[in-house]
Parts: sequence; structure tokens; C-alpha cells
Amino acid sequence: MRTYLDCYPCFLRQALSAARMVTDDEAAHQAVVTETLALLQALPSGTTPPEIAFEVHRLVRERLGDSDPYATVKAESTREALALYPRLTALVAESEDPLDAAIRVSIAGNIIDFGVSDDVPDLWATVERIMSATLAIDDRAGLRSALAAADRVLFLADNAGETVFDRVLLEKLKLPVLYAVKGGPILNDATREDALAAGLGTCATIVDNGSRAPGTVLDLCSPEFRDTFNNAPLVIAKGQANYETLSEAGPRVFCLLQAKCPVIADDMPAPVGSAVVFQGTLR
Amino acid sequence: MRTYLDCYPCFLRQALSAARMVTDDEAAHQAVVTETLALLQALPSGTTPPEIAFEVHRLVRERLGDSDPYATVKAESTREALALYPRLTALVAESEDPLDAAIRVSIAGNIIDFGVSDDVPDLWATVERIMSATLAIDDRAGLRSALAAADRVLFLADNAGETVFDRVLLEKLKLPVLYAVKGGPILNDATREDALAAGLGTCATIVDNGSRAPGTVLDLCSPEFRDTFNNAPLVIAKGQANYETLSEAGPRVFCLLQAKCPVIADDMPAPVGSAVVFQGTLR
Repeated sequence: MRTYLDCYPCFLRQALSAARMVTDDEAAHQAVVTETLALLQALPSGTTPPEIAFEVHRLVRERLGDSDPYATVKAESTREALALYPRLTALVAESEDPLDAAIRVSIAGNIIDFGVSDDVPDLWATVERIMSATLAIDDRAGLRSALAAADRVLFLADNAGETVFDRVLLEKLKLPVLYAVKGGPILNDATREDALAAGLGTCATIVDNGSRAPGTVLDLCSPEFRDTFNNAPLVIAKGQANYETLSEAGPRVFCLLQAKCPVIADDMPAPVGSAVVFQGTLR
Repeated sequence: MRTYLDCYPCFLRQALSAARMVTDDEAAHQAVVTETLALLQALPSGTTPPEIAFEVHRLVRERLGDSDPYATVKAESTREALALYPRLTALVAESEDPLDAAIRVSIAGNIIDFGVSDDVPDLWATVERIMSATLAIDDRAGLRSALAAADRVLFLADNAGETVFDRVLLEKLKLPVLYAVKGGPILNDATREDALAAGLGTCATIVDNGSRAPGTVLDLCSPEFRDTFNNAPLVIAKGQANYETLSEAGPRVFCLLQAKCPVIADDMPAPVGSAVVFQGTLR
């Protein structure tokens, strides 16, 4: 069974970072770090990164008695992204290929990721970079065909703030969209509340997947969501955790993301920092 | 007592990275990671980063039976740096202020640091960046005065390969230099062998500090080296670990480095990535 040793330092950093979002008490930080060290020591080999994240962030929440350590940074990300919304829609409207521009905007928004780093790079600079980037994996032609053939889209959200960038893409799709968020707070992943704050209620039907794991771990999702997923003709899945959990869920699934961490980038393979449109395969 | 929780994820990464340099056996990597998690859990609060590094790398060496996991990357760093040596000396010779250029070259070489990251950025691009950088902390005037007044210099080396960049500076100092390396391999820190391979034997007397701790932990150094240190009129100390251990060792000490990690950068304070010439203070 594969182990993900590279993820251990990263989850230790995440635990400390989440603890600091909740409290300034250094003894509490130390306690969270010590307990996370014990948790990581006890992990069965082969535990996947989304499963580790689920356990680590549960530990932080329970230890510090805060159900949503990332609430403040999520609200801030949404505010920052909404401030860019007029420029983003103008950029797409003025583009020679508005659908392509909107796909790139949605990928650019994937830079908002407190799992990968405690600092989010400048958002507009990221948009400019992704607008002119060569995609390291480029299944856009397949995505366009699938969009032309489908009567609806299931769109799996990733992070708060990124939601606003997704909205720009949703507004260019001429199809009904189900926008699926997490069933409860985990990291800075978007919940229903975060999606509503980003204005997604105006262009999609918001559903939740019934789970608090990062990505889409179907076994942990609600039966209703599993039905929705299984019956969707086309799934757009945002971000690294959705890639990790759904890259082998078949060609109905298109993963839109930036490869931000070396573990994911090596798996693809794609360079760290690159933009990707990846059509799912079958195991 | 201060804790350095931010360093824990970094040392866990270092342990894994060092283990991979020794063997491809994933069970061995897993064992090193698990034992490092236990070691970090048991650390007394207030253990400093050089002390943690000392323990973590001892664990890796003992667990894997390799006294110098970084031997190959050290040799490679020295080869790469030696390939640049003619361009570096030309750059300094053609400069309007050769001493200043040579100081900057030595600081540029501090980018070679496997403690901070497993990847070393492009060396020549780093030289060009540092040649035109504004120093975030700039005690160059004090350093020039001290060089003019001193009859000899104790130069505390940092990493293999960086040694070649130091050599460019040493060749511009019109003073006898003692070039002090570690007493045994730790991380990619330079030992006597590494300094000789870089050609330091032609422009300095190489001494070792009798210790295998990163930086200069005087209590762990040999009595001979402590005498040398205490009697030196001027000490040039390279890199983050020397800054950590000697920044309060008084105004005889000048730290030349790039602030590469957030913990050190916050301590100075200076931006991450910035170049620094820092004159020591007294506690």
C-alpha cells in the first residue's frame, strides 16, 4: 500500500496553522502539535491525504472546541474575490473565447488554498498568469464536447473565495448547474454558507455532499449525494483534493485545478504551479 | 521558554529527505518518519532549531547506518559551484566596488541549503538577484571598518558549494583567514573535505570547530576552537544556523546570509528571501 510520507510535514503545518487561527495561547498550539505528532505516528500505512486531513482537522476542532477554525480566512477570501468579480466578468466578456477565459478564471481561483500554504499569492497576478499559461494537462476539447452534449452539470466546489471564480464560469455555462459544497467545515473548503456569500445562489442550485472530508470521498457522502453523483452526465471537480479522490472516477469527470503540491504534481505528472484540465480515467 | 513549533514540520521533512538520500527502501523511510515523530513529541519546550537538527540528523544516521547522507548532494553542489567560479571572479573583478560584489557573491552562495528545501534555486539567477538586491539589514559599513582594523578574520563556513562563493570573497580580503568548518557531517554543512574540494586550501587555513551541530554552538565546540573564537578580532558567520547561534555574540560578529525560512526572517525581522549583513548584538 502506498504511503504518503511527504504529506506528514504538511499536515503538521496545517494543524499548527489551524490552531493559531483559533487561539493565541501557545500552550494550546503546543498541545495540538504534540497530539498531531501522535496521530501521525498511529496512522495505518496507506491512509490517503484526504483521510489524514479529515483526522487532523477533527483533532484540532475537538481539542480547541471550535467547529470552524478557518471561518475568518474564508470570509476574507470571499470578500477579496468578490472585490475582483467585476474585473473577472469584464475579462471574460472581452475575451475572444469567453468560455475558455471563464475556465481559466475558475482554475486561477484554485490558488486560494490554505491546505497548501498559509499565504495566498496575489489573486490578480495569478489570474494574469493563468490566462496566458500553457495547460500542463489539457483536456479542454473533451470538456467542451461534454458541455455541448450534457443537459446539466454537477460542479464540485473546492475552497471559499474560489467560489467567486467558479461563479464566473457557471455564468458562461448554458446549462443548469448543481453546485456541491461540503457537508460541514473542513479547512477552508466552501460550505453552503460560503457559497451563498459568494453569490452562487444566483446561478446554480447549491447542494451539500453530506461529508466533511476534503475532496469527494463517495463512501463518506450522503446517499442522496451519491445518487446525484452517479446520475450526473458531467462532473466538473475543482482542486487537488477532488483530483485525489476522483481522478479515476471515469471520463464523465473533469478536474480543474492548479497543481500546487509536489505529491499531486508528481502523480499527474505536471510541474508544480501548473494549470490543469484533466479528464478522469477508469482504475 | 520559547518553542519553535514552526520548525517541527520542517525537521520532519528534513528527516524524510535525508532518509531518501541514503536508501530507496520505503519501509526505512517510514521508520525514520515514525521515529522522528516520536523524537519531536519528546522534545523539551525551548529546544532550539540547531539542537533539534542535531538530534533529528543523528537519528537518521543511526537508524540508517550512514554517517553522511548528504555526501552526494554536497559533492554535486561543490561541482556546480566550481563550474561558476570563473564567472564569479570575473563579475567581482569587473565590478566598480569589488569588495562589495564579493560580499554579495558570498551571500548569494547561501542559497545552497538543503535544510530549508530539497530544491536549490538556479545559482546564477540567484547571483544576479543578490548583486542588485537592497539589503534588508545592512551593516556593510561596520563590516568594512572592522575589516580595515583587523589583522585576521575567523570565517565560519555554512554549506558545501557555498564554500566556493565564500572563496571568491576570501580572495578579496587582504587578511589571513581561518576558515572554520564542522567537526563532522551534519545536513549539507561543509566539512574539511568539502572545503578542500572547493579550493579553500589555497586562500585560507582550514580549521574545524570540533562539533557536529549546525551553526556554532560554542558549548559543543572543541576547547581549541572556543579559544580561536574568543580571540578572533573579527568573525564572519555564514548562514541561518550561525545567525541563530551567534546573533547575540557581540559586535565582532557579522552574519552574512539570506533569510530563507519564516522563523529566522521573523526574528530579524527581514522579508523571507532577503539578503542580510547583520552585526551581532549583546544579549
